[in-house]
Amino acid sequence: TANWGFADRNLGRRVKLLLLLPVQSRTLWTYLFFSFPQSTQESFRIEYDTFGELKVPSDKYYGAQTVRSTMNFKIGGVSERMPVQVIRAFGILKRAAAEVNQDYGLDPKIANAIVKAADEVAEGKLNDHFPLVVWQTGSGTQTNMNVNEVISNRAIEIMGGKLGSKIPVHPNDHVNKSQSSNDTFPTAMHIAAAQEVNEVLLPGLKKLQNALEAKSKEFSQIIKIGRTHTQDAVPLTLGQEFSGYVQQIKYGVARIESTMPRVYQLAAGGTAVGTGLNTRIGFAEKVAAKVAELTGLPFVTAPNKFEALAAHDALVELSGAMNTVACSLMKIANDIRFLGSGPRSGLGELILPENEPGSSIMPGKVNPTQCEAVTMVAAQVMGNHVAVTVGGSNGHFELNVFKPMMIKNVLNSARLLGDVCVSFTDNCVVGIQANTDRINKLMSESLMLVTALNPHIGYDKAAKIAKTAHKEGTTLKEAAIKLGFLTSDQFDQWVKPKDMLGPQ
Amino acid sequence: TANWGFADRNLGRRVKLLLLLPVQSRTLWTYLFFSFPQSTQESFRIEYDTFGELKVPSDKYYGAQTVRSTMNFKIGGVSERMPVQVIRAFGILKRAAAEVNQDYGLDPKIANAIVKAADEVAEGKLNDHFPLVVWQTGSGTQTNMNVNEVISNRAIEIMGGKLGSKIPVHPNDHVNKSQSSNDTFPTAMHIAAAQEVNEVLLPGLKKLQNALEAKSKEFSQIIKIGRTHTQDAVPLTLGQEFSGYVQQIKYGVARIESTMPRVYQLAAGGTAVGTGLNTRIGFAEKVAAKVAELTGLPFVTAPNKFEALAAHDALVELSGAMNTVACSLMKIANDIRFLGSGPRSGLGELILPENEPGSSIMPGKVNPTQCEAVTMVAAQVMGNHVAVTVGGSNGHFELNVFKPMMIKNVLNSARLLGDVCVSFTDNCVVGIQANTDRINKLMSESLMLVTALNPHIGYDKAAKIAKTAHKEGTTLKEAAIKLGFLTSDQFDQWVKPKDMLGPQ
Amino acid sequence: TANWGFADRNLGRRVKLLLLLPVQSRTLWTYLFFSFPQSTQESFRIEYDTFGELKVPSDKYYGAQTVRSTMNFKIGGVSERMPVQVIRAFGILKRAAAEVNQDYGLDPKIANAIVKAADEVAEGKLNDHFPLVVWQTGSGTQTNMNVNEVISNRAIEIMGGKLGSKIPVHPNDHVNKSQSSNDTFPTAMHIAAAQEVNEVLLPGLKKLQNALEAKSKEFSQIIKIGRTHTQDAVPLTLGQEFSGYVQQIKYGVARIESTMPRVYQLAAGGTAVGTGLNTRIGFAEKVAAKVAELTGLPFVTAPNKFEALAAHDALVELSGAMNTVACSLMKIANDIRFLGSGPRSGLGELILPENEPGSSIMPGKVNPTQCEAVTMVAAQVMGNHVAVTVGGSNGHFELNVFKPMMIKNVLNSARLLGDVCVSFTDNCVVGIQANTDRINKLMSESLMLVTALNPHIGYDKAAKIAKTAHKEGTTLKEAAIKLGFLTSDQFDQWVKPKDMLGPQ
Amino acid sequence: TANWGFADRNLGRRVKLLLLLPVQSRTLWTYLFFSFPQSTQESFRIEYDTFGELKVPSDKYYGAQTVRSTMNFKIGGVSERMPVQVIRAFGILKRAAAEVNQDYGLDPKIANAIVKAADEVAEGKLNDHFPLVVWQTGSGTQTNMNVNEVISNRAIEIMGGKLGSKIPVHPNDHVNKSQSSNDTFPTAMHIAAAQEVNEVLLPGLKKLQNALEAKSKEFSQIIKIGRTHTQDAVPLTLGQEFSGYVQQIKYGVARIESTMPRVYQLAAGGTAVGTGLNTRIGFAEKVAAKVAELTGLPFVTAPNKFEALAAHDALVELSGAMNTVACSLMKIANDIRFLGSGPRSGLGELILPENEPGSSIMPGKVNPTQCEAVTMVAAQVMGNHVAVTVGGSNGHFELNVFKPMMIKNVLNSARLLGDVCVSFTDNCVVGIQANTDRINKLMSESLMLVTALNPHIGYDKAAKIAKTAHKEGTTLKEAAIKLGFLTSDQFDQWVKPKDMLGPQ
Repeated sequence: TANWGFADRNLGRRVKLLLLLPVQSRTLWTYLFFSFPQSTQESFRIEYDTFGELKVPSDKYYGAQTVRSTMNFKIGGVSERMPVQVIRAFGILKRAAAEVNQDYGLDPKIANAIVKAADEVAEGKLNDHFPLVVWQTGSGTQTNMNVNEVISNRAIEIMGGKLGSKIPVHPNDHVNKSQSSNDTFPTAMHIAAAQEVNEVLLPGLKKLQNALEAKSKEFSQIIKIGRTHTQDAVPLTLGQEFSGYVQQIKYGVARIESTMPRVYQLAAGGTAVGTGLNTRIGFAEKVAAKVAELTGLPFVTAPNKFEALAAHDALVELSGAMNTVACSLMKIANDIRFLGSGPRSGLGELILPENEPGSSIMPGKVNPTQCEAVTMVAAQVMGNHVAVTVGGSNGHFELNVFKPMMIKNVLNSARLLGDVCVSFTDNCVVGIQANTDRINKLMSESLMLVTALNPHIGYDKAAKIAKTAHKEGTTLKEAAIKLGFLTSDQFDQWVKPKDMLGPQ
Repeated sequence: TANWGFADRNLGRRVKLLLLLPVQSRTLWTYLFFSFPQSTQESFRIEYDTFGELKVPSDKYYGAQTVRSTMNFKIGGVSERMPVQVIRAFGILKRAAAEVNQDYGLDPKIANAIVKAADEVAEGKLNDHFPLVVWQTGSGTQTNMNVNEVISNRAIEIMGGKLGSKIPVHPNDHVNKSQSSNDTFPTAMHIAAAQEVNEVLLPGLKKLQNALEAKSKEFSQIIKIGRTHTQDAVPLTLGQEFSGYVQQIKYGVARIESTMPRVYQLAAGGTAVGTGLNTRIGFAEKVAAKVAELTGLPFVTAPNKFEALAAHDALVELSGAMNTVACSLMKIANDIRFLGSGPRSGLGELILPENEPGSSIMPGKVNPTQCEAVTMVAAQVMGNHVAVTVGGSNGHFELNVFKPMMIKNVLNSARLLGDVCVSFTDNCVVGIQANTDRINKLMSESLMLVTALNPHIGYDKAAKIAKTAHKEGTTLKEAAIKLGFLTSDQFDQWVKPKDMLGPQ
Repeated sequence: TANWGFADRNLGRRVKLLLLLPVQSRTLWTYLFFSFPQSTQESFRIEYDTFGELKVPSDKYYGAQTVRSTMNFKIGGVSERMPVQVIRAFGILKRAAAEVNQDYGLDPKIANAIVKAADEVAEGKLNDHFPLVVWQTGSGTQTNMNVNEVISNRAIEIMGGKLGSKIPVHPNDHVNKSQSSNDTFPTAMHIAAAQEVNEVLLPGLKKLQNALEAKSKEFSQIIKIGRTHTQDAVPLTLGQEFSGYVQQIKYGVARIESTMPRVYQLAAGGTAVGTGLNTRIGFAEKVAAKVAELTGLPFVTAPNKFEALAAHDALVELSGAMNTVACSLMKIANDIRFLGSGPRSGLGELILPENEPGSSIMPGKVNPTQCEAVTMVAAQVMGNHVAVTVGGSNGHFELNVFKPMMIKNVLNSARLLGDVCVSFTDNCVVGIQANTDRINKLMSESLMLVTALNPHIGYDKAAKIAKTAHKEGTTLKEAAIKLGFLTSDQFDQWVKPKDMLGPQ
Repeated sequence: TANWGFADRNLGRRVKLLLLLPVQSRTLWTYLFFSFPQSTQESFRIEYDTFGELKVPSDKYYGAQTVRSTMNFKIGGVSERMPVQVIRAFGILKRAAAEVNQDYGLDPKIANAIVKAADEVAEGKLNDHFPLVVWQTGSGTQTNMNVNEVISNRAIEIMGGKLGSKIPVHPNDHVNKSQSSNDTFPTAMHIAAAQEVNEVLLPGLKKLQNALEAKSKEFSQIIKIGRTHTQDAVPLTLGQEFSGYVQQIKYGVARIESTMPRVYQLAAGGTAVGTGLNTRIGFAEKVAAKVAELTGLPFVTAPNKFEALAAHDALVELSGAMNTVACSLMKIANDIRFLGSGPRSGLGELILPENEPGSSIMPGKVNPTQCEAVTMVAAQVMGNHVAVTVGGSNGHFELNVFKPMMIKNVLNSARLLGDVCVSFTDNCVVGIQANTDRINKLMSESLMLVTALNPHIGYDKAAKIAKTAHKEGTTLKEAAIKLGFLTSDQFDQWVKPKDMLGPQ
């Protein structure tokens, strides 16, 4: 007759019920083990908001306003949830606000509990308590309330209170003190964007830049044919070719960085419409300083809060810089896959690392899959940028209400670009080898080298050599000798690709 | 001394181990119950591919090639996984292919097992076994192999074999028989897109259309001021205004539908480059017919497989139709929120349903949150469309390698549009009320009605009335009487907005 | 002492003054001929509108409202003028309206004069009289007034009246009768778009389709290596490869055509807000029928005029179809330039026509300039599409005020696509030759052909052959014989690319 | 019997033939004056290029390669010509190159003639001699040759030689010395973009910024209701509202400027593939310095010429900054037109200048036409940006071949934005007046002011007041007094909007 219920610590995902039943005799037991999805058997507490009562899952820290949003915005499902980076940024902001509010008189015990709870949010420990999707109110109010409710309840728990009681820590009066969704959400947007840029995007770009730079040096002595209009052109070194890629990525870093001064400006302190109603003088500056301290990033308070609430030009600008980086990556990845095309019927100048079976039958078939991931990401970033642009252009009066959509896309672009740079570097760039035989062959067969003969035998004879070689399918040297314009030694002496690599 | 391990059926999320231990006496038992996250303790089986050995989680049906992809493409995390709609579509396709392959000689026992396993994939039962992200090879090969591996192993399990043995059901030889990633992935793209359109997008649009149509009828007698250039203009009925929205959505449905003939064309049967190498004559047609039967949608085999592999114009086209729908929705949602703006200082002609507290202090503050979700979705769809366009334009030779990115965006647009139409309808449109007092007040105060006096007192006097009313801030009637141009009765008789609602 | 002033008939461009002066004797003459730009010496007439008096160039038919617009909108210069296609479409519409107005009582003499003047506008004879730029009021009101003024003055001239007198033909009362800018401008947009599609875009696409189809047939026996992921793959014919392009363009035509039913719907008859105030019952239908008759295109009156004024979804849709065509063209042109790359160091399978010197020194350097024009146009069309989308989504209430911008972009896309198809066809596609030597060489060297040996010697031996050939740089045949797996004859008998071109 | 032909100095547009005929007597003359379009009677000279002979209009300075391009690229017509800014920039570059080439040994007489001719190109005097459209080769080679031909022929003319003879000034050997299309065209792109930014875009933005700033100060004491989610919110001053716009434009200037360092880098000296083959050491640096001197802008030589030819990320970046500015302008213009909506049935807080008749009947109907031009331009810039992005991402190997399309769009965006800022400022912003009666009325009626009572009578009573006022349609004060919660004096003392405008 033993009978135990066991609730998994991971609240709310599933609840397992274990039943141990004596069957027929004392020595024979069986067990029944149930695992239910939350919805069928979950226990609830009742909470109220001004619209009436609502069931809140008893194992969740969020409250009525969060639940109401889940009911009103069934759009897109789990994959469309508010990015965790925004949630974590809110944790940082709420902690900073609590500390500053303490300076202005908030009960230190409450402030402390908020700080602890906010830290857990910032560390991502409470991610499961943020079920809202991006497609909610355009101010992100519901996510701000979600954060307020979670921190409030967790702080209540820390202080030994009852979940949902709002005592002793009230979601609005304490957690949201001196704040409004209208200034906190854009603040969280900027914190999240700045962190993603600094933690994922820029490190990814720099890693790629370094890898390309190493290759550029490694390949500095390999002379190859150049291609313009996709057609054969005069030579350059493979190192020079890669140096162009290095420059693109290096400038990409500079482009991102040049937009950050405006991303480092925080709206906090503007409250509902930018005036700062219900805050104290100095609050805005102190919160920004605290956020800067917590993140190690140079955040400051936005000089004009009206702009900071009503427009998100700073994110459009950042997205524009990422769009430029996407163009760079598209170009580089395209080049590398074409230069690595083959093995027999392509350009074949590069040997790309084999990361997975390209084909079950054909050896040497290396699909440039990393390049493909890069170019797909690039296309996505270009699309994200348009979404950000459309949202950014459509604010009205004191508030832009495309906030969740905008930050979702900005974070997505930053993450994808950063990740794909790392993947591309590790799984492709560092392992690229020059196919020097092929490169030399194409180089030596090229008709463009005839240019070097002009000073020695004149344009007309040089052209005749090239035309003959082209027509008869021979090398320049063969054609030159056949035509009797010069000797084999002269050809070797005069036609030196390595003298064609720079100004004289 | 009993000792049982118990593996949760929900493989791979967590493994639970139940230990029942006799303690000290026959009548006293205790239990230990462990629940581990997969990563810390998971057991593995070793599988091989041509690149060497790999550890595969023992509770997963996928195999070595899937694992290798997770190692090579750490891009974007869980939220960037291949959409489940694609996985389910693959289930349908693999079943269809197995049945057709049986016609061409595949062992019926193997075919049957594949059919059962594929059905589970199609039903979404095995979603946890598809860990790959979108940002992989641009042909979707790794997801095709993921599907082949899962179906193969599940079929092996059904037939009593050993996971990973590839016996008796081989992922390539049997599950992928007569197929290539290059034709199966685009086939799954089209199936998934067509299903999402038919199951989510079109029903959502039609629901919204119906709700708007009902409102248009409900409001057919309410005469209101028109606005052009955002400025006061001549009157129309609120029903007429809504009829424009109805027409937009109705045409939206037509636009989506007009693109579907090309989406219903399947690439299956084209194999690697479109020639159909390694398939049998008739295979393509039979597979399409089978997919049509399984889905109830009018799929046919694509008349030209080279186009079907190398280009995804059909999805660009569909995305373009969704982009148009996004424009319609943006317009409608903007109108509704502006017409519902207020309560005191806006246009205030519509009363929108209150779904959540708009403000803790101000009664009547209804934030048009559903409109905001609609407009955010619209912006996202416009962005997705550009990503699809860029991907669609960059195919090379026999294969477009932006496939996973393209279908992700197409499905995202279809889902978001469909969902937001339902949310908007249920939580906003059906509850919209006309604020007739306000509408009448604005209507009767309008200076535009003076137009109606032209035939009676001439343009010059009419203009004088309007100018006087504007200058002095009075009504037209007051100005008209004051100027002595007509009597109160004449004004009432001649200035009848309801006579201004159509041609004569 | 003779002295004549002579005004060039081409009014307004320049005025030339001829002076014939007797010099010293009766038999010796000299002449002075001055040609001034208009601005320095032009003569004016004074016109008035409700804002006061304005100088109108005496050699222009337009009036005060047009002049006022040129003063208020100095944006972008001459190249940003309203497209002539819109002006010509207005000519058609104004003629149609005049004829229908005559049915409803307009003085036949006035109607006749309007018809004649409108015809001149429709024929492009008066293009110089439309100086307004696109960047004006978003309803296109100023261009509608420009048209009304020009037709009015030209009709007055025809009837012997005085320019600017508005007698006997008034620009508003007669030329604009039963019309508003709000319905005439969108009507002109649809007429212009439909004509450009039918006269330029569709003929261009069909011409290209035919040329590609001819090439597909011409190349039907040329077996070549396929390329997927830009890498070597199994073979197909060059004709098959081109058949994919044919299909893309063929579907492009279908895509454009499938959007036209909604473009053929005309807003005329909706007047200011869509109600049709100030028109007569039947006017809308008759005008549409008249326009259909004049253009030979199946125009009908829009079933809902509120939608037709407030939204331009039909143009967004058409632009979306053109965006898809742009993707197709980008793909085709990219393929052709890569397949034609070389002459020595590229893929070299196609020989593209030489249209201009590619280089002063290198024979055979053919820059694929037509492909470049095609891909640039494609990029432009994608950009235009976003502009159209943004404009189309931002209408408010009874009027979308992005009309001139939208039609400018739609017409630009249609014209550029149509023109570039013709240019690409005439200057590139029809002259493409297959470089069969190169194609055969790549084909025969390809390792992918080993696939054909599987049924004869088994997968393992086949793979060994391929690996050996790849490693040693030999042909498959050489490797096969060296390994002793088969004879030369067997190889020739079993490895037949032409058996790999379709299902069995 | 006198008979003179007279060719207008404006070569090539038309040729006029003057006939003076003695009629009947020596003292009576008449004249016939013919003016022909060029095509019917124009005279030609024959020129040759490597493809054969071509007719060149005798009154044009361009040569065979230009004519050939007009034959091969009949795309889009006159409005699609290469922007004159590019042509003028080429003039500057060619002058700079000639001067530097003289340092390296070019005959000073030739250099001088080139300098003079190039100056005429730079000053726009020879614009009629550049007939080529944007839709040509993607490297802009044909425009570079057009420039070379025009300068060569004009220089020949200056030196007394024969047009088309290439003696003594050869288009390639002298005008194009040490240059390639591949480096000159991107150099001209950067010069043209930098000039347009500095001459049109930035001055326009700064002018608008100043005008908005003046308005912000003028309106600093006008307290008005705020609006969030388009709904009534807490108050701010009209000056504060405008200060947000000021900040947006101010940052817009900063955004543009932050991209310029990379636009100021010139590709000149890279020649065909970036190596600088056929130039001299120091050439690149000297040319950049010379261009900087001629333009007064801080141009430098690009540190990596491979990047400078193969990618145009700098222009994508600049376009991205302009895209952000477009978002700002869209927001500002939208706000202003909505705040100025009415006169009776809109928000009516602003009185916008009347620039043209808004309606023939209704006084006070001011269509916000300048706002409409601004928002149309914004949409165009967003579209242009996508075109630039697509082009920028599709370079291959050593050359991006979307150059003409990219610069066309960049210049178009810069010009339109700059022009529309000026037009918007002059014709709208400077004339905006606050409708203080309306603003005060809305302000005093607002229910949001109840917030101020919380500290005095508590939240519950305050809420009751607001609810009552909303329900009964009264003012807060009326409701408060009716409910007996406070006196009229107390209300006036406590509810002071001016205390709600900032933190305490």
